Amino acid sequence: MSSKKNKTELYELGEFQLIDRLTESFKPKNASTAFGIGDDCAVISPKGKKMVVTTDLLLEGIHFDLTYFPLKHLGYKSVIVNISDVYAMNATPTQITVSLGISKRFCVEDLEDLYAGIKLACDRYGVDLVGGDTSSSFTGLTISITAIGEVNESDIVYRSGAQVNDLICVTGNLGAAYMGLQLLEREKRVFESNSTAKPELKEYEYILERILKPEARKNFIEELKEKGIKPTSMIDISDGLSSELLHICKNSEKGCRIYIEKIPIDEQTSQMAEELGIEPTVAALNGGEDYELLFTVPISTLETITQMKGVSIIGHITEQSTGAYLVTQSNDEIKLTAQGWNSLKKE
Amino acid sequence: MSSKKNKTELYELGEFQLIDRLTESFKPKNASTAFGIGDDCAVISPKGKKMVVTTDLLLEGIHFDLTYFPLKHLGYKSVIVNISDVYAMNATPTQITVSLGISKRFCVEDLEDLYAGIKLACDRYGVDLVGGDTSSSFTGLTISITAIGEVNESDIVYRSGAQVNDLICVTGNLGAAYMGLQLLEREKRVFESNSTAKPELKEYEYILERILKPEARKNFIEELKEKGIKPTSMIDISDGLSSELLHICKNSEKGCRIYIEKIPIDEQTSQMAEELGIEPTVAALNGGEDYELLFTVPISTLETITQMKGVSIIGHITEQSTGAYLVTQSNDEIKLTAQGWNSLKKE
Repeated sequence: MSSKKNKTELYELGEFQLIDRLTESFKPKNASTAFGIGDDCAVISPKGKKMVVTTDLLLEGIHFDLTYFPLKHLGYKSVIVNISDVYAMNATPTQITVSLGISKRFCVEDLEDLYAGIKLACDRYGVDLVGGDTSSSFTGLTISITAIGEVNESDIVYRSGAQVNDLICVTGNLGAAYMGLQLLEREKRVFESNSTAKPELKEYEYILERILKPEARKNFIEELKEKGIKPTSMIDISDGLSSELLHICKNSEKGCRIYIEKIPIDEQTSQMAEELGIEPTVAALNGGEDYELLFTVPISTLETITQMKGVSIIGHITEQSTGAYLVTQSNDEIKLTAQGWNSLKKE
Repeated sequence: MSSKKNKTELYELGEFQLIDRLTESFKPKNASTAFGIGDDCAVISPKGKKMVVTTDLLLEGIHFDLTYFPLKHLGYKSVIVNISDVYAMNATPTQITVSLGISKRFCVEDLEDLYAGIKLACDRYGVDLVGGDTSSSFTGLTISITAIGEVNESDIVYRSGAQVNDLICVTGNLGAAYMGLQLLEREKRVFESNSTAKPELKEYEYILERILKPEARKNFIEELKEKGIKPTSMIDISDGLSSELLHICKNSEKGCRIYIEKIPIDEQTSQMAEELGIEPTVAALNGGEDYELLFTVPISTLETITQMKGVSIIGHITEQSTGAYLVTQSNDEIKLTAQGWNSLKKE
């Protein structure tokens, strides 16, 4: 944790003083935030819009490793992973609540770092912190965030609206966060066996940023609106392309074909994958934590979509009976499968 | 954990199959639930009402001990502690999200027990389960619930509206959950030193129920509406009367006097307190987990409030400069203090 000189132990502040100190710099920005922190509940005034709600739980050791994850980045990312789900409904995030379980090994300054990251994300994405719960914990750090967004009813995009022949598109590129994580894990192992070793992270700034400081696709959602395009289905890529595409296919009762050479992969991702002997396509299909958007649009929008920077058309929707397949460059078809829930498997 | 014969390991189901299995029996009951489980977000349609949002994090070892807390009861209570905050705004709870962090020591049937309790609470209080997040955990069980409610703007009751001379009232009785917890802890210690010992829980069903299966004060909120009374301030008692009353005083910028002999304490609470050498008033002031409502009303409502079953008038609001005090039977004044955040204190 913090090696700072001014270390304030948690017990020096009461629970309520701590919450006051951590949240005092957060000022509501949204008209819909009628009442924020400081009562039994926050009050939200939706003014004719629909509200969307999503929640994510981040546990130390499962979702993050504090040996290489700075707390400020962790705070930032915790907000991003939630509001990414709000954008995936074609909605605008407006409020979050933050619950923390913290053990005695953290000091007040650690939590201030975490909240500095939360605040940066809130400011950048125009989101208000409206509540939460702070509790002690016996073991690791627990972060639970709920995000609320608003949207006109006619703008909502579900996972279930994909139609046969729709184009399958993704924003940005895939697999980078996964390769960034592999790099961090490698350097951690090196450091553990030789504590004088310097981490070799040069030339890999981009993939490290993808795992340590991801962004949500706000600009893309705004651009779609400007261009008058409403996707027929949309989902954010948190568990890997394969799993998310299967969600769209299942909910829409459709099949799909995506093409291996169309999957957008950054050069650093490929380079790191080669170094570690991993197939970059596997990182893109199953790696997860990309927080890009996967969506489908009618083929009539082809021209507009092609002109959008940072959007790749990777395939098309088919009848459900044809299944969901990845097509290789030699025209072989590989069945798409969802990632298992590895961490609960018997060892 | 479960000693059932039909034990399904978590790894036998995928994450999505597990969620499907746990949530399939939950059917939306509220018109405002436009879309529940199964997309990136739930969609809520507030139809002219304000929405209230609250969240609570429950951690194994801090908030519950599974050696004596049955999972079904834990599921029930996890919902109650959240919707109690919604009632404390004078609102009606309508939706919840449930996030779980679960380790390998749990089996599918354990989680089904937990969800049976969640479902019972949802059914009894008319609440819809609309989303959540299920994750593996290295250590204990983590439960994070966010509750959403709806309310007409003019009906919202904050902590901040108490006026000088207002009556201070509480529903039910206080300190029972705390004494129930002391009893369970005592029997756990006895069992740990002699595993053939039978727990002595007879005659204490009520205080055990208060800790293991608390209820939220739905009926009281409805009765207040029927009688046309809107409290000037309200809060639910989760941290003990003292701490909650200080919240009302601080937010309302007022002082208070409450009278020791007016604090409602159940006979079983007093009896257990005597057995364990604890002052029952201390349990009421600092014990917590009562989930009763503490509220203030204008003195003009005295007659109506007096006729309401299960409501006690315990004192009155004063000018802020006079402080917040408990008045003893010998007319001594004891300053009210909030509970510290004990579990983070240095040992």
